[in-house]
Amino acid sequence: MIENWVSANRPTDEEIEARLEKARYQLFERQIKVKEGKVPVMILLEGWGAAGKGSILGKVIKNMDPRFFRVDTMGVPTEEELRKPFLYKYFKRIPENGRFAFLDGGWVDEVAMQCLHEDLEGEQYHNTIESIKRFERTLTDNGYLLMKFFFHISEKEQTKRIEKLLDSKNTAWRVSEEDKWQNRHYDRYFKVYDRYLNDTNQSYAPWYIIDGEDKKWAELQLLEYLLQGIDTALMNRDNVVPILQNVFPLERMPRLREIPLDMEMPEEEYREELEACQKKLRSLHNKLYRKKVPVIIAYEGWDAAGKGGNIKRIAGALDPRGYEVIPIASPEPHEKNRHFLWRFWTRLPKTGHVAIFDRTWYGRVMVERLEGFCSKNDWQRAYNEINEFEKELTEWGAVVVKFWVQIDKDTQLARFTERQNTPEKQWKITDEDWRNREKWDLYEEAVDEMIEKTSTTYAPWVILESNDKKYARIKAMKTVIAAIEAALEK
Amino acid sequence: MIENWVSANRPTDEEIEARLEKARYQLFERQIKVKEGKVPVMILLEGWGAAGKGSILGKVIKNMDPRFFRVDTMGVPTEEELRKPFLYKYFKRIPENGRFAFLDGGWVDEVAMQCLHEDLEGEQYHNTIESIKRFERTLTDNGYLLMKFFFHISEKEQTKRIEKLLDSKNTAWRVSEEDKWQNRHYDRYFKVYDRYLNDTNQSYAPWYIIDGEDKKWAELQLLEYLLQGIDTALMNRDNVVPILQNVFPLERMPRLREIPLDMEMPEEEYREELEACQKKLRSLHNKLYRKKVPVIIAYEGWDAAGKGGNIKRIAGALDPRGYEVIPIASPEPHEKNRHFLWRFWTRLPKTGHVAIFDRTWYGRVMVERLEGFCSKNDWQRAYNEINEFEKELTEWGAVVVKFWVQIDKDTQLARFTERQNTPEKQWKITDEDWRNREKWDLYEEAVDEMIEKTSTTYAPWVILESNDKKYARIKAMKTVIAAIEAALEK
Repeated sequence: MIENWVSANRPTDEEIEARLEKARYQLFERQIKVKEGKVPVMILLEGWGAAGKGSILGKVIKNMDPRFFRVDTMGVPTEEELRKPFLYKYFKRIPENGRFAFLDGGWVDEVAMQCLHEDLEGEQYHNTIESIKRFERTLTDNGYLLMKFFFHISEKEQTKRIEKLLDSKNTAWRVSEEDKWQNRHYDRYFKVYDRYLNDTNQSYAPWYIIDGEDKKWAELQLLEYLLQGIDTALMNRDNVVPILQNVFPLERMPRLREIPLDMEMPEEEYREELEACQKKLRSLHNKLYRKKVPVIIAYEGWDAAGKGGNIKRIAGALDPRGYEVIPIASPEPHEKNRHFLWRFWTRLPKTGHVAIFDRTWYGRVMVERLEGFCSKNDWQRAYNEINEFEKELTEWGAVVVKFWVQIDKDTQLARFTERQNTPEKQWKITDEDWRNREKWDLYEEAVDEMIEKTSTTYAPWVILESNDKKYARIKAMKTVIAAIEAALEK
Repeated sequence: MIENWVSANRPTDEEIEARLEKARYQLFERQIKVKEGKVPVMILLEGWGAAGKGSILGKVIKNMDPRFFRVDTMGVPTEEELRKPFLYKYFKRIPENGRFAFLDGGWVDEVAMQCLHEDLEGEQYHNTIESIKRFERTLTDNGYLLMKFFFHISEKEQTKRIEKLLDSKNTAWRVSEEDKWQNRHYDRYFKVYDRYLNDTNQSYAPWYIIDGEDKKWAELQLLEYLLQGIDTALMNRDNVVPILQNVFPLERMPRLREIPLDMEMPEEEYREELEACQKKLRSLHNKLYRKKVPVIIAYEGWDAAGKGGNIKRIAGALDPRGYEVIPIASPEPHEKNRHFLWRFWTRLPKTGHVAIFDRTWYGRVMVERLEGFCSKNDWQRAYNEINEFEKELTEWGAVVVKFWVQIDKDTQLARFTERQNTPEKQWKITDEDWRNREKWDLYEEAVDEMIEKTSTTYAPWVILESNDKKYARIKAMKTVIAAIEAALEK
């Protein structure tokens, strides 16, 4: 894009002043509409070193109420961020509904540097671009306004600015080593930037190139594009998004009612197996830690199916410093105000750690679907969004194991009744459980659809037949062990 | 996509029947809503030979009022279509607002065959894909619902069906030579289809893969996806589309008021030049015809700037069998009911022919903009849509010359007054001309923006300084001659 790009004619100084004044005032007004309209706005400022991103951003936010925005300067990733998937640090920073998030430098910078210093090329480059496109699309599909600005200056201008900054002690610190390297290799950077911009210029998140040669003019361009984007987003708030067909490899799975549930495991066999599995798992956990493989174990299942006891057996084998059990309840307001996957992205384990999710992101296509907590369009879209999410996890190198803990309706009734009648277990049974039970058939339909549409080959569902809890526990442990062993062999 | 695709579980016969009945009835209802909502619907049926596209389409349209749809079977292109740009035959067939157009076979088939039989590869393949993506996007940006279905069957099933069809004289004719070739080279076709589907699976026009192994089930899938698409389109009718930044190389152009208009050409010099130019042009026209180069000359300019006389001098040099002057007036209802470029796509010259447009597709960003005949979003988007359109033309091999015929305001007044006062010229001057003159400044602003944003290197604007009409005529002819000579040298 910058290859062919020709800047618009710079207006006269007078015109710039007049339009700036108007645009600044309009931004002040629009931020209130954004807040009222509950539109989350993410603004990516990318471009050449010394192109003026920071100082122009400083001017733009002067027109805004500080409660409505946050600015993040994406510098060197933290130790923690390096141990999370590539997109983690960006997903973490998506704004709440009605708020602005400005990112000074972002995923373009990161990709460009990898291309130039770490040989990101071919298949791997392609996969990174696909990840980014999916990430951007899932944001905009979920109502985010994502605006991507590239600040462009010529090599000559960059040299001039860098020299000027270096001239004074007060400003020399603003020139990074990478800025200097970039200026010396302007042409190489140019090619990498240009290809990246072409590859990611999508109609749901197009690039806006800002002519950065003149600061006031650059500020005006940024403001006017931003206003245009906001107006578009406000008018499109109720968009219904097309449902994309799955593009990931799927495994055929049985329907719930086709699953035999008569397997049992005698007590003695169970004791032996349990001990052997826990020993095995303990030793694998060490290896995982050393090889820095992250593990994500996801549990879904019927009420009273035995999730808790199952999780306990796995967790019991792990070093407490290296795992976490994450119970998922209804989302809190600050979670509801973001993309539904945000609360899972931000809870991912570090490399070498194990995260066990007690209920998961699949709530979107079960409870949220059935209780009407999201629109039909939302949950229908979510199958693909979830497959994309898990694709990111496995491409990052994570072991992903997903359990559906299955029992039949009679078994549930027996366990409910037992809980009700056993004083120390009564806390485990609530009116809601009984209400959910009434919706068994609807849930079964939803679960069947979920398993059908999200059993990807890279993250298939595993059914734990849990009429006999002992059988289910051993099966879970063996499944986890096999998955970890397979990952360690890679 | 078909590589990884796993069909949804086929419902039971009973369920299919029940859902079919419901879906058929819904389609009957929805077609009325589509008509009332003025949504144009284009449906592309692609896929394997003998996959059942035709027969299922036959069933689907039984639920529809024949006034609301048209079916086109895209077979071998006609002689005329072969002499137009690749996308011509598809653009020609886009439906009017509120109507359905079904295409049985389309651009996938064409591209796949070119890949397999004509070595469409690399850069050229990439350009074709980009053209298609732009075409699809400009349709959906303009409110079209574009649904793309791929009917998928296995190699085994295809073999079985082809054999069965060949068994009877009544059906053998339905198996084409290409179908047989395809079946013998199923794997090669599979790869080509799969790559194509991946490359063109866009959120504004996603692919829907139809499991074609069972006809009733295939019909149901098609109907249900179609209904889903229609509902989405109806809800999104008032979408505001983001304005894409130009990605094509631009030339810097002066503003209208910076253009000197004092050039003059003495009568004698004019006579000589005119004769020489016309002679030259006549001989070039022959060469164009033999080399099958199409030429498109576009005229825009102020009222009374001298467009008519200018066009006459060029046309006068051409063989009447090989050129056409196309005057463009306000669009008629059937034109207004389609994408604004449709009436230009359908008026393109054949290869080897010359089309001179007296006013053009630029009406969108001048009169339609200023008179409010389209929304702000529409005309702001149009710069890019026009650059894309002209990109198609030049990639097809056309010579594209665009003239802006420029005069100053005083000269216009003098010519208007002269027309008014000369009985035989009075028909040339209307009240509307005087009204437009009052909006001179607004038009000037619009024209400046138009020239700035659409002077691509492959189709730049040429200013004809026409205070002296003779000067302008010779400049026009020399410009056309130079452009044709450059094209013939390629």
